[in-house]
Amino acid sequence: MNEFLVRQSNRLPATPEGKELRQRLQPLERQRAQELRDAGILVRLWRVPGTRDSIGLYQAADATALHEALASLPMFPWMEISVEALATHPQEQRPG
Amino acid sequence: MNEFLVRQSNRLPATPEGKELRQRLQPLERQRAQELRDAGILVRLWRVPGTRDSIGLYQAADATALHEALASLPMFPWMEISVEALATHPQEQRPG
Amino acid sequence: MNEFLVRQSNRLPATPEGKELRQRLQPLERQRAQELRDAGILVRLWRVPGTRDSIGLYQAADATALHEALASLPMFPWMEISVEALATHPQEQRPG
Amino acid sequence: MNEFLVRQSNRLPATPEGKELRQRLQPLERQRAQELRDAGILVRLWRVPGTRDSIGLYQAADATALHEALASLPMFPWMEISVEALATHPQEQRPG
Amino acid sequence: MNEFLVRQSNRLPATPEGKELRQRLQPLERQRAQELRDAGILVRLWRVPGTRDSIGLYQAADATALHEALASLPMFPWMEISVEALATHPQEQRPG
Amino acid sequence: MNEFLVRQSNRLPATPEGKELRQRLQPLERQRAQELRDAGILVRLWRVPGTRDSIGLYQAADATALHEALASLPMFPWMEISVEALATHPQEQRPG
Amino acid sequence: MNEFLVRQSNRLPATPEGKELRQRLQPLERQRAQELRDAGILVRLWRVPGTRDSIGLYQAADATALHEALASLPMFPWMEISVEALATHPQEQRPG
Amino acid sequence: MNEFLVRQSNRLPATPEGKELRQRLQPLERQRAQELRDAGILVRLWRVPGTRDSIGLYQAADATALHEALASLPMFPWMEISVEALATHPQEQRPG
Amino acid sequence: MNEFLVRQSNRLPATPEGKELRQRLQPLERQRAQELRDAGILVRLWRVPGTRDSIGLYQAADATALHEALASLPMFPWMEISVEALATHPQEQRPG
Amino acid sequence: MNEFLVRQSNRLPATPEGKELRQRLQPLERQRAQELRDAGILVRLWRVPGTRDSIGLYQAADATALHEALASLPMFPWMEISVEALATHPQEQRPG
Repeated sequence: MNEFLVRQSNRLPATPEGKELRQRLQPLERQRAQELRDAGILVRLWRVPGTRDSIGLYQAADATALHEALASLPMFPWMEISVEALATHPQEQRPG
Repeated sequence: MNEFLVRQSNRLPATPEGKELRQRLQPLERQRAQELRDAGILVRLWRVPGTRDSIGLYQAADATALHEALASLPMFPWMEISVEALATHPQEQRPG
Repeated sequence: MNEFLVRQSNRLPATPEGKELRQRLQPLERQRAQELRDAGILVRLWRVPGTRDSIGLYQAADATALHEALASLPMFPWMEISVEALATHPQEQRPG
Repeated sequence: MNEFLVRQSNRLPATPEGKELRQRLQPLERQRAQELRDAGILVRLWRVPGTRDSIGLYQAADATALHEALASLPMFPWMEISVEALATHPQEQRPG
Repeated sequence: MNEFLVRQSNRLPATPEGKELRQRLQPLERQRAQELRDAGILVRLWRVPGTRDSIGLYQAADATALHEALASLPMFPWMEISVEALATHPQEQRPG
Repeated sequence: MNEFLVRQSNRLPATPEGKELRQRLQPLERQRAQELRDAGILVRLWRVPGTRDSIGLYQAADATALHEALASLPMFPWMEISVEALATHPQEQRPG
Repeated sequence: MNEFLVRQSNRLPATPEGKELRQRLQPLERQRAQELRDAGILVRLWRVPGTRDSIGLYQAADATALHEALASLPMFPWMEISVEALATHPQEQRPG
Repeated sequence: MNEFLVRQSNRLPATPEGKELRQRLQPLERQRAQELRDAGILVRLWRVPGTRDSIGLYQAADATALHEALASLPMFPWMEISVEALATHPQEQRPG
Repeated sequence: MNEFLVRQSNRLPATPEGKELRQRLQPLERQRAQELRDAGILVRLWRVPGTRDSIGLYQAADATALHEALASLPMFPWMEISVEALATHPQEQRPG
Repeated sequence: MNEFLVRQSNRLPATPEGKELRQRLQPLERQRAQELRDAGILVRLWRVPGTRDSIGLYQAADATALHEALASLPMFPWMEISVEALATHPQEQRPG
């Protein structure tokens, strides 16, 4: 299983249309995020303080599966996302 | 208590709508900022010369409390904000 | 409690002295890291693939406590460290 | 299987010692690289023109396996490496 | 023959017009890409996970021929493209 | 009076000589810093967590006076310093 | 007296409205700039070749006074400005 | 005579208006460019592959003359231009 | 034929050894550069003012041939080189 | 005549040798700088506060003459210099 650190910057504009879109999409986004949690793909999610951006710890078979999960989020078209592959640290490798 | 250095870049556009919005929001922004001062959250605020951006010294229990304070500012949706956690310097640590 | 994302770049030189120092310090580093885990300060640690750098999830009362924990690591003098404060994401806030 | 794009910058110094080390390690590096090719881990390798740096296409089960392969290269201690996870492009996804 | 590493960032806006344009252009883009594959110009294409961007391995007689191939892609006007020339690595040079 | 935000990165090497120099200079540095506090030049000093760097709030008649104060610090030759001029924020301007 | 190096990037859009606004504001901008020269605040102004940006040498009691001067320029709302405090060089310090 | 390396990034938007403007301006741009060649100001022009940007070798009495030549190009208002002054290399200095 | 813009930053240290090495290598560097001119590979070379760096216009069959030419320069081991592929500009394309 | 903005970062190391070299070279550097002033080449020089770096306003026939002036400074081998060509601003152009 691969672990990834994912930064998501929310580019929805602060216009009346943007605000309306955010309010419409937010519950759908939460719902889809919950599904990804239940599937063990989304592990942890933090807010970058002072922003609408987030940092997430994700797990997936590979980067293609991760991409499909991220692209399934309703707010994906307005997200600027960067993905960083994480390797297991020697201190956390189970012996044998 | 945590101290944070917070940079706020004002992205309100220099359009007629942006100007009108700025004039409408500014007194509300001042009022909310004063509330944060009274609550001991906003400690100092400086203007970055030549810009509408600011640098602020904030105090909060943690980054989550800081985020909620910043997100409560009326101009938050038009702000690009970066937050830097500050540790107490050895020269300013009270003995014992 | 504050959560922090911490990037640690290892600047020990690839010289014979650097190699000897690394071998001497590594077990001490592991031991101290384990103490920080036991104290609930070091939560997760990943290897940045292709490097000797790491990304860690830490918890501490505040940035000063975090600094003291990081500065207590034997390899601290050879580390280039950047710390990012994390706020709790709305999706992970326990109701009430 | 995961595909990764890997940039390797060679930091061996242009000193007499560095030159001697390069000459001693180069055949070992080639040999190890060939083993990684035979194992299907190293797929393609290009030279960044005007430098001693390279860009490689690697395949591995995950970022941890990739790290172990890269760390096994004799010149690893003198390499500055950055790893980018690649997802399969829709145009190259086999149907079904 | 020259090999190039090409990064393509898709700047089509996430507006209704942008979405409609994407849907209209995508099949044309695929078709043109297939023609470039058949001509041996487009060799491999990967998705940058979490984005609509891609990284491609291209071959062309020179940078001018590469430019003409890239400029022939229907989505070219909305692409931010950077091109990196690749030299053959000594480990992949056919003897003689 | 001018206010400045000053970032000081400590470039003393982590060698035995560097360690010895740090131990010799540190008390002198503290003493000089205290003199600058007493003179109202150094107002606040924070530690950048995870580093030996600091961020300071300074006051001086002008940038030349600030430079002389910073250059008088014993560790100045090993410091990488950047200075940012701060203007008074409208919210902190005393009326009249 | 403080000297400052000020970079001003002109963000007026190259639209018909932007062009009309530029033509209307330019004489007012010149007039205000002349006032700042007469007041000894604006000392020298250069054009960054190939752009509509400028680099200026300004003098002011402090960064707050500089900010007020810059904010008084008619094109201020469309300017991206960065300010750098300058200290007197030892070679230009009048003896005694 | 001064030689300059000039990078020109074309910021004309990929909108219907932008496309129409490009088609109307292109012949005028070519004509003006040819005049600059005939005047010995524009010496060489290359296309940055994969973009609508260019890199040019220009000659002019000084940066002011260069600016006037660049500002005379019809597409100047939509160009992001950076200019780099070039000195004669010792290997190309005519003796005496 | 491919044209390339090549930036060469000279990293020879300003130590007595570095100075001696520079004096020994400079004539060999000039000689080799002249051979590359005679072979039509090195077309033009400029000095970046205020540095020991250079910008060169090179021509080669492909990036591999360019690399071999650059790597044949005596000062290559102390050079930091970046290569940019150039495409022929439409304004300079010979008709037919 | 060309005007240039020149940034000079002093890379003399903070070692005993570096200190001795600085003390030996400084008077020679002042003397040469004075000659450049007398020749009208060096016009103004400022100290970047908190550093040993400087920003200078220079005048020269062209970038080659400027380079020769800068390269004649005794501390040149230890300087990291960047040069920016300045054009005359329309507000400072003498009519006719």
